[in-house]
Amino acid sequence: MPRIPFEELHQKLTSALLALGFTGQRAQACARLFAETTLDGVYTHGVARFPRFVRMVRAGHIDVHAEPELVTPHGALERWDGRHGPGNLNAWQSMERAIALAHAHGLGAVALANTTHWMRGGTYGWQAADAGCIGICWTNTLPNLPPWGSAEPRIGNNPMVIAVPRPAGHVVLDMAMSQFSYGALAAYRERGEPLPVDGGFDAAGQLTRDAAAIEGSGRPLPIGYWKGSGLAVMLDLIAAMLAGGLATHQIPPEPEREIGISQFFLAIDPTVLGASGGIADAIVASVGTRYPGQRTLEVRTENRKLGVPVDDGLWREICR
Amino acid sequence: MPRIPFEELHQKLTSALLALGFTGQRAQACARLFAETTLDGVYTHGVARFPRFVRMVRAGHIDVHAEPELVTPHGALERWDGRHGPGNLNAWQSMERAIALAHAHGLGAVALANTTHWMRGGTYGWQAADAGCIGICWTNTLPNLPPWGSAEPRIGNNPMVIAVPRPAGHVVLDMAMSQFSYGALAAYRERGEPLPVDGGFDAAGQLTRDAAAIEGSGRPLPIGYWKGSGLAVMLDLIAAMLAGGLATHQIPPEPEREIGISQFFLAIDPTVLGASGGIADAIVASVGTRYPGQRTLEVRTENRKLGVPVDDGLWREICR
Repeated sequence: MPRIPFEELHQKLTSALLALGFTGQRAQACARLFAETTLDGVYTHGVARFPRFVRMVRAGHIDVHAEPELVTPHGALERWDGRHGPGNLNAWQSMERAIALAHAHGLGAVALANTTHWMRGGTYGWQAADAGCIGICWTNTLPNLPPWGSAEPRIGNNPMVIAVPRPAGHVVLDMAMSQFSYGALAAYRERGEPLPVDGGFDAAGQLTRDAAAIEGSGRPLPIGYWKGSGLAVMLDLIAAMLAGGLATHQIPPEPEREIGISQFFLAIDPTVLGASGGIADAIVASVGTRYPGQRTLEVRTENRKLGVPVDDGLWREICR
Repeated sequence: MPRIPFEELHQKLTSALLALGFTGQRAQACARLFAETTLDGVYTHGVARFPRFVRMVRAGHIDVHAEPELVTPHGALERWDGRHGPGNLNAWQSMERAIALAHAHGLGAVALANTTHWMRGGTYGWQAADAGCIGICWTNTLPNLPPWGSAEPRIGNNPMVIAVPRPAGHVVLDMAMSQFSYGALAAYRERGEPLPVDGGFDAAGQLTRDAAAIEGSGRPLPIGYWKGSGLAVMLDLIAAMLAGGLATHQIPPEPEREIGISQFFLAIDPTVLGASGGIADAIVASVGTRYPGQRTLEVRTENRKLGVPVDDGLWREICR
């Protein structure tokens, strides 16, 4: 796989977005979010998603010019309408607004309706932490996960992100409510490896570590069985209610038509309480294992130095 | 097991707390929280915890007269000091304050340091929902769970509660970050039943459904393996940083000395955005399985009618 210098990757993606109709600054920003995701080693949600994104723009599902619109402000809490704009730009702007509210009120939140896929959720956690804030955000998704007690995909895997700022390296958790994503299942199948732990049910309803069997049954496991299933429902409830937007069961169940989703962004400014970063360092040290986000920083450093790995065919496609 | 009318249970617990030195109104309130937890069927965290609570008061670990003190207010975010007061009264007052901040600012949060065990976390979710608010809160705990990748209990199971108000019955998720609590493991062992899913590691480091083997190894599983392990760390980070209080690794690892813990309470007022309760009804219906909190409402109704089940020996002890 070729390794592309980050700036070159960013530039080519920007050009592609300009050709797609984006205006200059928005093309730059949207391309940066795609490129940084791959830079950070989250290969499933960065440049690899670009072709689908382009198709969704061309199909009219994503409006490249749409910017979020304030619907209802109330103190530190605001409802915005994403107007089917590019999901990563919408999410970035929403977290920026939550951070500004947090600087003013100690904490602030934005609920965003009618948006599109935010790509890597972790992006908005790093964003909050870079601004010195604790960030918590989540999105609902199309129905892609059976709730505990059912074989039908009636809930979303609703990724949730929690970030804590720390000078020695932010602590950033980015997790979906399914134990393994369909992307992860495909990767295990292609490598011919069993999953490290049970990842879902096979066609006979037995727990299994066989990725292909889970792809076949469409029954991945929620994290913690009934617990992650319940958590996914709560995240959907809060996002849809506050945003006044669609809930998982109303979102078209096809990835290329996953539009109109609802998201929630919360930022908390710990500095207003005089919170000490030393507490975070001591906790990270006490756990003694890798901390959430640690690997991201390592890969980011490596890919900045050696170049960002991009699939050969994909890279040629982007350059065209 | 005798079934005690709720009012009688509440009265006897109040008398016991008065004898322990509580003043009138605080005895009533603290007793109510214990009695309501058992009324709701959360038998592990209600009246069954009362003897330990009494011992901790007598040992001087809990100060019956201490009330939370405001340390730092900043807009919609406040830091409070729990001063080792009764954990359920401290938590109740903190959520009341978060609700008041939410009514004023749209959302509000309280970080509480130096508190003691809040007993049932779900209590404060029901409290927020009864006030028409979304409630999110969590606590850190003594180290009782090995992080993923370690065999040593270096993180807490840090229960988290999320509640969404709904006229037809609030949706309330109350979950610890371990797949099974030690109380649940003991119950399976006593009944001679295997766990329904893997609950931890045995002494040989193999995943097992044998509750006794997990009690022996001290290695229960975090929900979702690495995911719940990471989530527990994030909850500890946020609670300890914002409260300026102790982190899990600083809390004495003995249940009867689990004091000085840190908690976080967030309330969001959906009515200020004109949020519709119809969305919650539609989501609950679409999932089609039991929803978080549903069973609580059923048991509450049954126990109100038939009386609250209380262990015979315990009831006699309380009446003395």
